Amino acid sequence: MKIAIAQLNFHVGNFAGNLAKMLDAVKTAKAQAADLICFSELATCAYPPRDFLEFDDFITTAEQTVKKLAKAAKGIAIVVGSPCRNPVVEGKDLFNSAFFLADGKIKQVQHKALLPTYDVFDEYRYFEPASDFQVVEYQGKKIALTICEDIWNVGNNNPLYTICPLDEMMAQKPDFVLNLSASPFNYNQASTRIHVLQANAKRYKLPMFYVNHAGAQTELVFDGGSIVLSPNGKVYDELPYFEESVRCYELAEVEKNKKHQERKKDKMTLIHDAIVLGIKDYFGKLGFKKAILGLSGGIDSAVTAVLAARALGKDNVRAILMPSQFSSDHSVNDARALAENLGIQYDVMPIETVYDAYLGVLKPHFWGTGFNITEENIQARIRGMLVMAMSNKFGNILLNTSNKSEMAVGYGTLYGDMCGGLSVIGDLYKTEVFELAEFMNRDAIVIPTNTITKPPSAELRPDQKDSDSLPDYDILDEILFQYIEKRQGPKAIIKMGFDSKLVKRVLRMVNINEFKRHQTAPVIRVSSKAFGMGRRMPIVGKYLS
Amino acid sequence: MKIAIAQLNFHVGNFAGNLAKMLDAVKTAKAQAADLICFSELATCAYPPRDFLEFDDFITTAEQTVKKLAKAAKGIAIVVGSPCRNPVVEGKDLFNSAFFLADGKIKQVQHKALLPTYDVFDEYRYFEPASDFQVVEYQGKKIALTICEDIWNVGNNNPLYTICPLDEMMAQKPDFVLNLSASPFNYNQASTRIHVLQANAKRYKLPMFYVNHAGAQTELVFDGGSIVLSPNGKVYDELPYFEESVRCYELAEVEKNKKHQERKKDKMTLIHDAIVLGIKDYFGKLGFKKAILGLSGGIDSAVTAVLAARALGKDNVRAILMPSQFSSDHSVNDARALAENLGIQYDVMPIETVYDAYLGVLKPHFWGTGFNITEENIQARIRGMLVMAMSNKFGNILLNTSNKSEMAVGYGTLYGDMCGGLSVIGDLYKTEVFELAEFMNRDAIVIPTNTITKPPSAELRPDQKDSDSLPDYDILDEILFQYIEKRQGPKAIIKMGFDSKLVKRVLRMVNINEFKRHQTAPVIRVSSKAFGMGRRMPIVGKYLS
Repeated sequence: MKIAIAQLNFHVGNFAGNLAKMLDAVKTAKAQAADLICFSELATCAYPPRDFLEFDDFITTAEQTVKKLAKAAKGIAIVVGSPCRNPVVEGKDLFNSAFFLADGKIKQVQHKALLPTYDVFDEYRYFEPASDFQVVEYQGKKIALTICEDIWNVGNNNPLYTICPLDEMMAQKPDFVLNLSASPFNYNQASTRIHVLQANAKRYKLPMFYVNHAGAQTELVFDGGSIVLSPNGKVYDELPYFEESVRCYELAEVEKNKKHQERKKDKMTLIHDAIVLGIKDYFGKLGFKKAILGLSGGIDSAVTAVLAARALGKDNVRAILMPSQFSSDHSVNDARALAENLGIQYDVMPIETVYDAYLGVLKPHFWGTGFNITEENIQARIRGMLVMAMSNKFGNILLNTSNKSEMAVGYGTLYGDMCGGLSVIGDLYKTEVFELAEFMNRDAIVIPTNTITKPPSAELRPDQKDSDSLPDYDILDEILFQYIEKRQGPKAIIKMGFDSKLVKRVLRMVNINEFKRHQTAPVIRVSSKAFGMGRRMPIVGKYLS
Repeated sequence: MKIAIAQLNFHVGNFAGNLAKMLDAVKTAKAQAADLICFSELATCAYPPRDFLEFDDFITTAEQTVKKLAKAAKGIAIVVGSPCRNPVVEGKDLFNSAFFLADGKIKQVQHKALLPTYDVFDEYRYFEPASDFQVVEYQGKKIALTICEDIWNVGNNNPLYTICPLDEMMAQKPDFVLNLSASPFNYNQASTRIHVLQANAKRYKLPMFYVNHAGAQTELVFDGGSIVLSPNGKVYDELPYFEESVRCYELAEVEKNKKHQERKKDKMTLIHDAIVLGIKDYFGKLGFKKAILGLSGGIDSAVTAVLAARALGKDNVRAILMPSQFSSDHSVNDARALAENLGIQYDVMPIETVYDAYLGVLKPHFWGTGFNITEENIQARIRGMLVMAMSNKFGNILLNTSNKSEMAVGYGTLYGDMCGGLSVIGDLYKTEVFELAEFMNRDAIVIPTNTITKPPSAELRPDQKDSDSLPDYDILDEILFQYIEKRQGPKAIIKMGFDSKLVKRVLRMVNINEFKRHQTAPVIRVSSKAFGMGRRMPIVGKYLS
């Protein structure tokens, strides 16, 4: 039996577009004499459809899409993920299902049993878990259909669920496993995924075909990297990351345990490519082409600009340099040098006259008060407003340049430098931004060396440095990582050897700035715990010790 | 047996504060010779703790709080909601539980079985459902302990769950039901709640004591209104809305089916009081006192100002009037009249000089373009920045004044009039804002009549009216209600008789403005479907037909 797996870039709610892509892939697979082609989870409507699933005619359109696809299932079987109505009145109204299509019809449906409801996942919000498990018989083979999380309750020592769907199916003696996934990227995910697949192969001793989605939906990047595994747990083949791909496999060959094709997964390469795809799909799927951003001469906006130019092309990125009386000469020069290295258009707009106009209006009301963070915020907000004005006038989307460290501790101005439609590097700690900058410069200098080597500064008052208000980023980022990614409380972090006062100060900053993060752009997720939909913290909460 | 129910205002993560309140209530109940006192769901840590639940020492602190409370359970039994660790390795790590405390100890624990995971609820994100059901025996009575949703699978024709916990307990012949709730307000909730309780009484023929939380946590207002129901389904007593209350009941009296005390629930009274509590607790629980807002002379900021003055006191609300060359005289006069009616401090800051300074900087870059929405946005953003500057300088929180209609269709400026720490009326359609204004004026004029009767306008260009860009609010709000609250798709709404072009235009506006709503303040929720945590829509999604 010849099995094709199709890792495609779907678009949420774009049924016609998604169907067209699948029909194309069916043609490709047929041309290679495949007996079966498998698409990813919820391929008809794309993952994650979120509350669109609560609309009856969204589900109807998904059903119609499956039916249209079924008509192409002649001379080939098709496995596709799509929502399915639950005919039983008790329980949720939908299942998250794998449809087996053959002879022009829907032949069988297997629902997903394990519904991830943690971090960025909300599946039990919509779906009833499967309670019935039936392998599919096709051309003399028995196929175990599983959907993403269904195989993830194996191989970890704190299983989230009380059952394993493949355990339930083993009595029916399947010949191989298909897994339809939509598994979002983080920089550890590719390794974790292979570990989980190997744990399954070890337990069930079956060939596994894991088909992932490849494409970004707002904050989530689905990285592809679909995998074919031999029954001994060796990687038979791995599809490319971050791009579409359709490949065919002879089942008998996969069963032979011969090849071993695991690819190296370098953290910075993965992050770089994930963010580039995240930007590209955000713009492409919204129907926009052009980005704008403020360039300060600092490292955050520099790295953001490079990523944007690579995602959208240099002609589609425009930079605005907005010096004030507090800006150093090198800032403007560094920003200019970067823009020239990238070949992107840039404009200079000094902000002093607007700043003075604000101070003039506020003077009678500010009587008796001195320069403080208010005046710093005014400068950041003028810059935000100027780039937003350019964005409104010329129709380009403003890219936010905040990093994860400053978003965490609130070292940024709401409605100022926190403006933007998409946060590009908001899931990278400052130390990771430096790493990424070095990575970008590894073959040739793109980011001016001075941008990387000078001490970070917001330049909102004379001789300001980040280190005036914040601990060194090396230490700060480690504390933040423990609190955010590892969900360690203050006691546990102090126990690791960090200064107790410092830990409490940092955690307090993170907590009291929840209100700012609530109002920021979606962040392209590259870590296992990004700000946004995957981290849901109370704003008026008090916990800290 | 004498049963006390305590509807208290807890604060998320404030274990010491919550414990002190509970110990006080225990004292009150003991003074009235109560045999048992019941608190609400997750009372130790307050509801909803959200991802704080993922922190190990948050759970430890909750456990310690239960133990401290247990020490007070002498001569009285205490029932309290708190998270409980799951000792089984498979499944989620926590339960959402009711602890039965007596003789100074934890005597029994009943976990919650039905875990709401829809709208604003995320319980399956954290909790394993109960699979074991045991009544508590105490002083010769058998008590069925249930937690909120546990009784909500009865009395509706599309049950969300496949079991009813009380069905499982009935074989043990309980004498009465305790229900520990944290059930957030919407203007229909009080009626729905009584309907559900009555459906339970009808099915199980038992007295029911329903104990709700009373207090606000950011966007959610818990309205209290705890209920004691006789076995015949008549309301024996109903506790006040939106305030704390502890009351005692003789079980034998409740069993007699005598009284009937259901209160009238007027929509505007409920909404008014809910928002006032929402503002009060947002400020109080964050440790702030003072609010600031822009007053335009229009109805949205007027209604917001009245609510703020009632929640925080007139001395704690400051208004800023920011006229431009496009403002009409009556706008400033109406705003001034309102501020004077309320007795709140106000300042006038004309925005022309700042506006001109912006245009001066942008002129060379805007060459050849005409006045459009960009210049309108600049005005709105200058206002946002001026009030934010005042907020930063004087430490008052900016209140957002956007209504639900404009948030829905994107008729507002991001980083302009969409600024603010808390959206006060963001869950009221424009037509409801008018209703609320009339309600506020029912005894005496607070909001100037002209503010209510003049046609709504943003006053960002000469003679602008909302009706230039938007359909009449009567029609717009009905379409929005069908799409947002009722989750009707375009086909279904057109079928109701609305113009098909108009419906598609409105729904398109709602969908393409998801990116703006993503960046707005938390909205005090008063309807069954508010913008924010309860409505999770894709930003790059395409669905519309």
